[in-house]
Order: sequence, then structure tokens, then C-alpha cells
Amino acid sequence: MPADPSKVIANLQELRALTADEAGAQRLAFTPTWSKAREWFAGKLAGLPVKHHLDAAGNSWVTLPGASPHSLVLGSHLDSVPNGGWLDGCLGVLCGFEILRALSAQYNGHPPFTIKLVDWADEEGARFGRSLFGSSAFAGTHTIAADRVRTDRDGITLEQALHDSGIDIDKIGDAATERENIAAYLELHIEQGPVLERLGQPLAVVLGTKGVERHAITFHGQEAHSGSTPMADRRDALAAAAKLALELRSIAGKHPDAVCTMGSVKTFPGIVTAVVGRCEVTLDQRDLDATVLATMLREAQEASQRFAAEEHCTVEWSKIWSIEPVPFHPELIELCEQAVRETASTAPRLPSGPLHDAAEVSRAGIPTVMMFVQSLRGISHNKIEDTSLEHLALAVTAMDHLSAKVLNWLGSKEPVGSK
Amino acid sequence: MPADPSKVIANLQELRALTADEAGAQRLAFTPTWSKAREWFAGKLAGLPVKHHLDAAGNSWVTLPGASPHSLVLGSHLDSVPNGGWLDGCLGVLCGFEILRALSAQYNGHPPFTIKLVDWADEEGARFGRSLFGSSAFAGTHTIAADRVRTDRDGITLEQALHDSGIDIDKIGDAATERENIAAYLELHIEQGPVLERLGQPLAVVLGTKGVERHAITFHGQEAHSGSTPMADRRDALAAAAKLALELRSIAGKHPDAVCTMGSVKTFPGIVTAVVGRCEVTLDQRDLDATVLATMLREAQEASQRFAAEEHCTVEWSKIWSIEPVPFHPELIELCEQAVRETASTAPRLPSGPLHDAAEVSRAGIPTVMMFVQSLRGISHNKIEDTSLEHLALAVTAMDHLSAKVLNWLGSKEPVGSK
Repeated sequence: MPADPSKVIANLQELRALTADEAGAQRLAFTPTWSKAREWFAGKLAGLPVKHHLDAAGNSWVTLPGASPHSLVLGSHLDSVPNGGWLDGCLGVLCGFEILRALSAQYNGHPPFTIKLVDWADEEGARFGRSLFGSSAFAGTHTIAADRVRTDRDGITLEQALHDSGIDIDKIGDAATERENIAAYLELHIEQGPVLERLGQPLAVVLGTKGVERHAITFHGQEAHSGSTPMADRRDALAAAAKLALELRSIAGKHPDAVCTMGSVKTFPGIVTAVVGRCEVTLDQRDLDATVLATMLREAQEASQRFAAEEHCTVEWSKIWSIEPVPFHPELIELCEQAVRETASTAPRLPSGPLHDAAEVSRAGIPTVMMFVQSLRGISHNKIEDTSLEHLALAVTAMDHLSAKVLNWLGSKEPVGSK
Repeated sequence: MPADPSKVIANLQELRALTADEAGAQRLAFTPTWSKAREWFAGKLAGLPVKHHLDAAGNSWVTLPGASPHSLVLGSHLDSVPNGGWLDGCLGVLCGFEILRALSAQYNGHPPFTIKLVDWADEEGARFGRSLFGSSAFAGTHTIAADRVRTDRDGITLEQALHDSGIDIDKIGDAATERENIAAYLELHIEQGPVLERLGQPLAVVLGTKGVERHAITFHGQEAHSGSTPMADRRDALAAAAKLALELRSIAGKHPDAVCTMGSVKTFPGIVTAVVGRCEVTLDQRDLDATVLATMLREAQEASQRFAAEEHCTVEWSKIWSIEPVPFHPELIELCEQAVRETASTAPRLPSGPLHDAAEVSRAGIPTVMMFVQSLRGISHNKIEDTSLEHLALAVTAMDHLSAKVLNWLGSKEPVGSK
């Protein structure tokens, strides 16, 4: 009795009709539209032999008790960015829901292991700038002190928004109790990038999430009149920044999966008639290999010093944020590859550039793996985000296969009834 | 009875005490502090055999009638940028005033030619973004239709501010009547750049004002996730802009006095986690040679197209503003060189990168020349703008010599009493 992809697609379409407007999905965490999505989802549980509860961080857990309390967890997130797509996050939740339903039917409500479905709270961080809110509370990596004073664009604090959603910010760490007895975590997500489309492949095994180094870099030169300052007398902070913007491509280009991005450039005074005296830029570097990431950071720092010196400027760095690479579980990667190969014949292996809740789960020591399904045009966080229905169906089937394999794997480590 | 440099310096210091605060000069045009500066200046005229009037554009004219109605005009502007320096503009007015005073004394109030001193209204354009307001009205190049709706940061329109200063915006073109009988125009100004300090020279002959091409350039690429988009799949608008920023130096470098400046860069969406989808930059190109200026513009346009293509982006240009080069009068340049050489032994010739009221006067067909005096550190439009007192004194003396030479030159073309 396999999971039925058409049910997943129908639910995705129903959720879109309920929570998207002409500009896209509006399931911003801790808002009424997000609550509406979660209520709609809770309504889908009727008739299933499951329990449903929210943990201390607002993560939503559906539990189908099995013979063993050790549990296989499937999950992702229902929240979206503003003007988001119809698949980012909710695909993983609704696919997981269909697999849970199918497993319940297959085992007459009594699977060998407990099956759980989790909808993580505020994966996107789009409202308060703190992504992976619920899963980091679960993993015990959340930094409440730094985050409680974050505000949204209306000046509402994260603490207040949580309170309005029934969450006490001082207790979100209690979500860690949910880690008990979790034996494996599986997450399906759209790729959000162009690689699978370019390869002509529907599905990929995800090797882990890349580590990220995120820094603010400021070049200091000398503001000067654009008309009266000869080229040779300039200390042009933009010139140093432009050299770095181009050098980043060489730095990333030495490694097959590495990326380096200068996403923001601000010029001061920033007027047509003045040489740029100060240039503030941002740097985002990612790779799955911690050594590669450290090398790229060092090379960018050295390059920035060299270019600053060439342009008679100075440069200073300020770290915004970083996270180490999170490789997924080798045996689950192997099972995922088998499941993808059975479904789509070839199984490319990709690192994930974007972060996902699965990274936090994996950091908590839980065997984890993710599967990607192709994104059309590589576009996400946008109403035109899309995946072909054929590929969505393949993804549900492959995840269904993967779940069965992981249950067998759990059984091989803990024969049913051994407890 | 030469002009007395110490009187000029004393007046500059008096004006600074009256109209500057801790942040610098505050003689913003059409404000109470500017009016205070002009009232203070009018008070200095007491006892001189002069007439004083404002023209239809608010330019202030002091007239010492001579045997011939044909007039030698000295001038500059009393207005300043906010937080400006103590010399920009007012040096030329107060030096001209001292020369007028000295000529009046020398000729017992009856010089062979009429001597005029003009204080142009709103040279800086700092409040409404329209520089050379008064002199362009005088020259007949002012575009009222485009400028009347300009607003300052408090939302007051140029039209209203002019009205409050007693100026009817529909009549500013009547200032053109002041052009009658003007035979020559001389302006002393600080260099506002670093060239004379680097050369170790106090004074320069100004060859003219450079033409300016000012454009907005937008590169269109594809916004993309910084984590999920491989380097090879990017259409990074910033990369194309960075290449252009660096190429501009090669384009300018082929010509000895040319400058090209990218003063503003704006990135969209401009966040640390996104490849830049759109990059808006500004270009300012200047040279005294119209052919050079046209060549540089064409080369920048071609380079932008080439870099856009290399980065799989597109580019569009939008003209902000341009003005042709304004070469000064060859015979007056020669006389200015003699005057500078007599005073400072060497007479470097420089084009002016910044625009000046003298450019508008020259465009109106009036024989014109400017003299520059060294700026310390090349800094202007700032409270630390400065020039050594020794160099200020040399400048007054050289302008005094130049005025005498120009009166002789006028006499050689029109013997006194010939009218």
C-alpha cells in the first residue's frame, strides 16, 4: 500500500488556495495565515490513530505510536517567506504526512517503530531574521539571549510574537526533550537551485548542508571631488571592493561545489560627484568541507588586504554569522541513494547550499538524510517557484521507498520486539 | 596703490565668524544665514562711490562706474554647501571687492572702465540640486521648467524659496540684461583638488572647465540564492558593474587630465544571501577636450556592453546630465599666466574639474578666465577646507595684477574716451 503522490499534490494545491494570494504564499511564521495553515493541517489528522502536540518551541509533532518507542521522523516546515512559493517546506511536511498515513494503513495502525511527523516552527526566519528557530531549539543550539530582542518591521519583538502564539521564550529549550528516542530523521525539499534541472535529473541524495562564513567588510579610502581629484591621487574604496568582488570567483572556482557571494555593496557618500570614501560589502562563503571553507575565508581576507593596499585604502572585517558544515549520516545517504536509484534510475549526490532544519537535527546527533527534487529554473522564495508534477510524484515515491528502507535499517539494529 | 591681501583675509575671517558654526560654513543659498552674509557684505560698501542692486535672478551686483560703460567684472559666490569651508566662493567675492576698492582709490572713483563685482546666487545648488542657478539665468541657459518643482529636504519648492527671497521664478531670465556692456570676467577660486599642493605651486592659470558626461547605468542579471546557485550558473549584475568600475580607470588613464568616477553603487535585493540581480551605478566623466570626452563615453558604453555579455546580463544607460567643455579666452589666459608668473614665478596651467560660474559667463560669449589658488590636502566642501595665508595673499596680488592687465587690454581695444 504505497504512499499516493496524487494525495500529496492535492494537499499542496489545497494549502496554496488557502494561504497564498496573487503575490505568492504568505505563511509567515507566527502570523494568522501560518496559524490557518497549521489548523488546516491539524484537520487532516482526523481518523488517524495519532497524537498531536506542540512542543515548547512551537514545533508541531504528530505521533503514530509503534511497537518500539524508537521513532522514524519525517518533517519540514509549513511556514514560508512573504510572497513565497507553493513547495518550499510544505512539500516535505505533506509528503511526510502521506507516508505516515500509508504506513498507518500498511501496519493497521501499529508499525514496528514509532512514526513521527514534525512541522518545524519558523524555519525561514523571514520575519525576525533568525532562521531554523524551532529546530535549533530542539537541537539545543538556539541562543535566546541574542534573539529575544529581534523585531519585525512593525517593531514587534520576537518575544512578543512568540507569546502571542502561546510560546514562552524562556522555555523554548524544553523542546530538546523531543529528541528522546528519535532514531532517524528524513526530509524532502525542493532543491531551490538549478543543478538538477541542468543535469536533467528529477531527484538527488543530499550529502549534508554546507558550512557558511558570513562577514561584513568595509573598505576605507578618501571621499574626494570627482571633478578635481586626478585619477592618480584617488583612494577609491569602491575600486578595492570591485577587485574583491571579482577575485571571489577565483577563490570559489578552485573547489567544485564552493560558492562565494558579494550580495550587498553600499557606497558612501554614494553620490555621482564624489569618489567613494567608504565601501561596505557583504561576503557569504559556503562549502561542505570545513577545510575548504577555512581556506576560502583566509584567501578572501588576504585578497582584501592586498587590494586595500593597492588602492591606498584600509579594510576591516566583522563577522556576521557562521556555521560549520553538517554532513549527513553515511548509512542513510546510502539508503537514500538506493531509494532514488530505484525511482529515477540515477542518483546524483549534492551538497545543500541552503540551510535546512535537517542540519540542526543532524547536529543533535540524530542519523539524518535529505532528498532534493528538481526546482524549475532554480527559483525559490518567489511565487514562480515550481517543480513538475511528474517530479513531485517521483519524489513522494522515492521518499516512501526510503522510509521503508530506514525502517528495515532500524529493525536490523533493533529487531522488533527486542525491547 | 595695490589691493591689500590682509584686508581680504580679515574679511574672510569676519565672514566665517558670522556664518559658520562648529560644523563649518552654513551659507546655504536662500536661507537666513546666506541673507546675513549678503547684508554683512552690503555694509562693507559704505563710503565707496558704487551702486548696488540685485538682478532678476538674485545675483548681487556692485557697480563702480567708469569712463567707459564697458565693464570689467570680478566675482564668485557667497553661498556655501552645508558644513562647508571658509574659502569656497567667498574668497573670489572678497578678493574682487578689495580689488574694486583699490581701483576706486587708484582712480579717485573714476576708473577708465566700469568695474563690477558680482556675487552669484546659489552657485552650489546644495539645497535644490541645481548648481550655477544665478549665473545660468544670467547666461540664458537656465531651464526653469525643469527646476521649478525641485524641493529641498523639507519639501519646500525652489519656486517658494525664491519667492521668499523676493525672486519671481518666471522672471529670472531677465538677469540676461546684465550681460550688456560686460567686456571681461575674472574669477579667483580655490582649486578644491590636490594638484597644486603636489606640484608645490601656489597658483594656477585655469584653461577652462571640463565638460561633464553624467549617466546612470543599470546592469540586469538574475537574483539567485547564494547557497543553492553554483558559480557557473550565476548572472551576477555586480560582477559586470565591478568590471566596469575597474575599466573606467583604463579609459580615463589614456588622457592626461581626464577623470572617470563611479560614485554610487546600489545592489538589489542587496542582501547577504542573494546573488545581485540588479546593480545600479553612476558614472561621471570629465575632460576639457570634447573629443576626449566623447571617446571616453563611447568606450565606457562599449565596455559596459562587453561586461554585461560576459556575465550573461543586460545593461541600460540613462543620461543624468551633461555639459560641454568651456575653454576660457585665449588672450585672458595669456594675461593670467603673466600675472601668476610675476607673483609666483611659475604658472602651471590646469583645467578645472569642478564647474564654476565662470563657465556660464564664458558660455554667454564674455571673455573669461579663472585663477586657482592651492587647496591644502585637496579638500573642499568640508570645514577643514583650507589654504595657507601666504598663498591667499599671493592670490590677491596676482588677481590685482591680472585686473590691471585686463584693463590695459580693454584699453588697447578701446582707447579711453573713444566712445
